[in-house]
Amino acid sequence: MVYAANVSERRRQPPELAISTVIFALRGDGEESRPTLWMPLVRRTRQPYQDLWALPGGPLSAAESLQDAAARNLQETTGLQPDYLEQLYAFGGLDRSPAQRVVSIVYWALVKPDEAALARETDNVRWFRADGVGQLAFDHNQIVDYALWRLRNKVAYSSIAYAFLGEKFTLAQVREVYEAVLGKTLDPANFRRQLRAAPDIQATDEYLQGGRHRPPRLFRYTGSAGPKNGPLA
Amino acid sequence: MVYAANVSERRRQPPELAISTVIFALRGDGEESRPTLWMPLVRRTRQPYQDLWALPGGPLSAAESLQDAAARNLQETTGLQPDYLEQLYAFGGLDRSPAQRVVSIVYWALVKPDEAALARETDNVRWFRADGVGQLAFDHNQIVDYALWRLRNKVAYSSIAYAFLGEKFTLAQVREVYEAVLGKTLDPANFRRQLRAAPDIQATDEYLQGGRHRPPRLFRYTGSAGPKNGPLA
Repeated sequence: MVYAANVSERRRQPPELAISTVIFALRGDGEESRPTLWMPLVRRTRQPYQDLWALPGGPLSAAESLQDAAARNLQETTGLQPDYLEQLYAFGGLDRSPAQRVVSIVYWALVKPDEAALARETDNVRWFRADGVGQLAFDHNQIVDYALWRLRNKVAYSSIAYAFLGEKFTLAQVREVYEAVLGKTLDPANFRRQLRAAPDIQATDEYLQGGRHRPPRLFRYTGSAGPKNGPLA
Repeated sequence: MVYAANVSERRRQPPELAISTVIFALRGDGEESRPTLWMPLVRRTRQPYQDLWALPGGPLSAAESLQDAAARNLQETTGLQPDYLEQLYAFGGLDRSPAQRVVSIVYWALVKPDEAALARETDNVRWFRADGVGQLAFDHNQIVDYALWRLRNKVAYSSIAYAFLGEKFTLAQVREVYEAVLGKTLDPANFRRQLRAAPDIQATDEYLQGGRHRPPRLFRYTGSAGPKNGPLA
């Protein structure tokens, strides 16, 4: 590789710190009716991995907290400031970058539909279906796989699904989140029954607007869907 | 503080990377019969925070992966090589260390009783009850609080409790893990019923050795109690 440094030399340099962000939103893709998981990626305009797509991110500057750096990356790349922004994992393998060892602390953001609709796209920032990102720069495919795995696990034991929904939603919309994350269809009647038994879901007196012959009722989530950092919050 | 650098100067230096490890084991303390959570700490022999206790750890060397650095810290400090060693969280606040900004990637290890019995103690390495560590160096009290919070959450939705137990255990020993982690007593009959209904707990034909008039049956955990890193494993 063009920028590869001498191995013994790079083993002497202290590792560099970077922040990257995996951003997930639910979107219809225009052709099928079920929404799927999408994520914005940034085209690399220089070596290494020039012209490949990568997660938004950059070096950690000395005067910025980890969370602030992630929020800034997100804002600069997509114009978004989602409520759900949480640390995901630190990736620190020895050979992640050809020039110098880089340790990346990765955050993930979950974006609500009204926010996702405001996201910017440019020549070098584009949204991709999470299951169709192609070959990414560095070890970013591995990071995306890890984020998808964590998301699938976390919908099962937490209220993270509501981070993808607006303030009011139909039960079918909740099911669509689970179906998009888990990558499989769920039985509507079973799902509806389980959800109605959940303590944090409250029926409202409102119904989904639209031309349907029997408009479905809207519900609210009354717990906290944001990241739970415990004593760090 | 003696080692405090000029603020504008430290804001120009790149952050330094360190690895620290929170190590939990269940131990009786000799006075009461119920085991409680304990952790080894290291006495600082130089500034900053000289003579205060701190989590085991040190700077990340250029040629070592994050996990290898954590395993080495653990081995050098306590002589232990526990199966359960997992990344916990990266702490990167601006003012964690007086001399230079340090970002610490924190691992946690859960130690089984047979391993814990082998742990070394010296003048500068001592085990403390997790709820009685006193004032620690740097932000290490915050890190310990965070680790305890994560542990309490994680016993509720995962099989992490079995990382504290040997290959065979009584149901009362499982309850003692939950009681130590959650810091409260649990109803033995209820707990026993729930556990007998769990799919991953299997009765053996063996009974706990000892002088009890009715020796309790030993069980095995048949799932995986190790850290689940999904695509990283």
